[in-house]
Amino acid sequence: MAQETSAGGDEVITAAVLVIGDEILSGRTKDRNIGTIAEHLTAIGIVLREVRVVGDVTADIVAAVNELRARYTYVFTTGGIGPTHDDITADSIGAAFGVTVDVDARAVALMEPAYAARGIALTPARLRMARIPAGAALIVNSVSAAPGFQIGNVFVMAGVPDIMKAMLEAATDRLRTGPKVNAVAILVHRAEGEIADLFAAHQRAHPDIAMGSYPSFTDGIYRTELVLRGVDKGRLEQARAELVGLLTDGGFL
Amino acid sequence: MAQETSAGGDEVITAAVLVIGDEILSGRTKDRNIGTIAEHLTAIGIVLREVRVVGDVTADIVAAVNELRARYTYVFTTGGIGPTHDDITADSIGAAFGVTVDVDARAVALMEPAYAARGIALTPARLRMARIPAGAALIVNSVSAAPGFQIGNVFVMAGVPDIMKAMLEAATDRLRTGPKVNAVAILVHRAEGEIADLFAAHQRAHPDIAMGSYPSFTDGIYRTELVLRGVDKGRLEQARAELVGLLTDGGFL
Repeated sequence: MAQETSAGGDEVITAAVLVIGDEILSGRTKDRNIGTIAEHLTAIGIVLREVRVVGDVTADIVAAVNELRARYTYVFTTGGIGPTHDDITADSIGAAFGVTVDVDARAVALMEPAYAARGIALTPARLRMARIPAGAALIVNSVSAAPGFQIGNVFVMAGVPDIMKAMLEAATDRLRTGPKVNAVAILVHRAEGEIADLFAAHQRAHPDIAMGSYPSFTDGIYRTELVLRGVDKGRLEQARAELVGLLTDGGFL
Repeated sequence: MAQETSAGGDEVITAAVLVIGDEILSGRTKDRNIGTIAEHLTAIGIVLREVRVVGDVTADIVAAVNELRARYTYVFTTGGIGPTHDDITADSIGAAFGVTVDVDARAVALMEPAYAARGIALTPARLRMARIPAGAALIVNSVSAAPGFQIGNVFVMAGVPDIMKAMLEAATDRLRTGPKVNAVAILVHRAEGEIADLFAAHQRAHPDIAMGSYPSFTDGIYRTELVLRGVDKGRLEQARAELVGLLTDGGFL
């Protein structure tokens, strides 16, 4: 994985998300994990660079995992670690890393008391959820016990949003993080075409601040949200205050 | 693009979606287009095979477009075609195809009457939205006039969900479609671990029907949705009816 450095000399920690599941590609299930992971990574100082969604196809999962883990500091996968035949993520990750996948005693030890407490038998089907690639560390699942796992720089999590969130929280302590990117927004009640020239000139004057414009049109009212993002809070506030001044002078605020 | 054929001998029409935008990767904006496009393509007989999200970075957009358009029948992009400096999709698509990108008279002709009717000037900033790669066909935008475009097998659409939907509808007439994949679902009020063995055996007995299991747990109740998908409605109904019988015999329904 190529190491990146920010303008300030800090290492930039990058990530990709890989969503695994036919149900997302068919449109039957609407993904809710991408946004959750994106927000979380941004908040802790990891830059999400890419997201992919692939179906329940071993070759597609293996290819995506191997491409993404070579390119980014971390890869977070969601989906495909349940007990049914269509849950092929653990085996696919094992194939990607060239390691065996077997029922893991540590995973069984996490599941046994939780299942016993609920009066549920650890059937062979449920033990599929304890199948972990050799060399992986477990990710605790505080919701329903069956763990996720980390192998190399790849974090394998459930697709059910509540369980994914619990695993993401549990994995966070292990992540190296870089400088946090701060964001500020200015809402303008104009179409973005009206402020585009002013905004482009402002971006040119502040190359270290990333500036984006996000329009919406509801109830007959144009709204444009101008978002400024940067690591240095002082420079970000300076760019924000100047932009408010320019917008005010232009009669847009 | 490699041509695929279904078991029934029909050509399989495949697609990828490429979502373009820093705001999705930062988590600030939650994507709502992937699910809409996925549902639409499934309904008309196009198989969505992959989704990617990349940021507002020309090299990343170019690489993704060129990889995906070589691999699938169609590529649908969303985002980055507005009037502001961070809207770099048209130029990136031009770079991917190795063609120039200029203000297009056909696009201006679509925008002029709509802007005149709203009493809005077609400023240089707004004319950025009329910049179209050479050789592209326009995609009409019935919401806000500024068009999307199609070049080769790539359909370039807006990121604002209402506008994206209008463009997707407008583009649909141009799409070749394959056999529609039908889906049926059975809701079981059990954890999926309980029916996993039965379900796996049923999948083995019906290899032409794709079967997936989607669990949820809310208000203390386990629910598992078993989804069967296939082109042939007769065989799908047969597999569904048999599964209902097996679940009933097992005491799960």
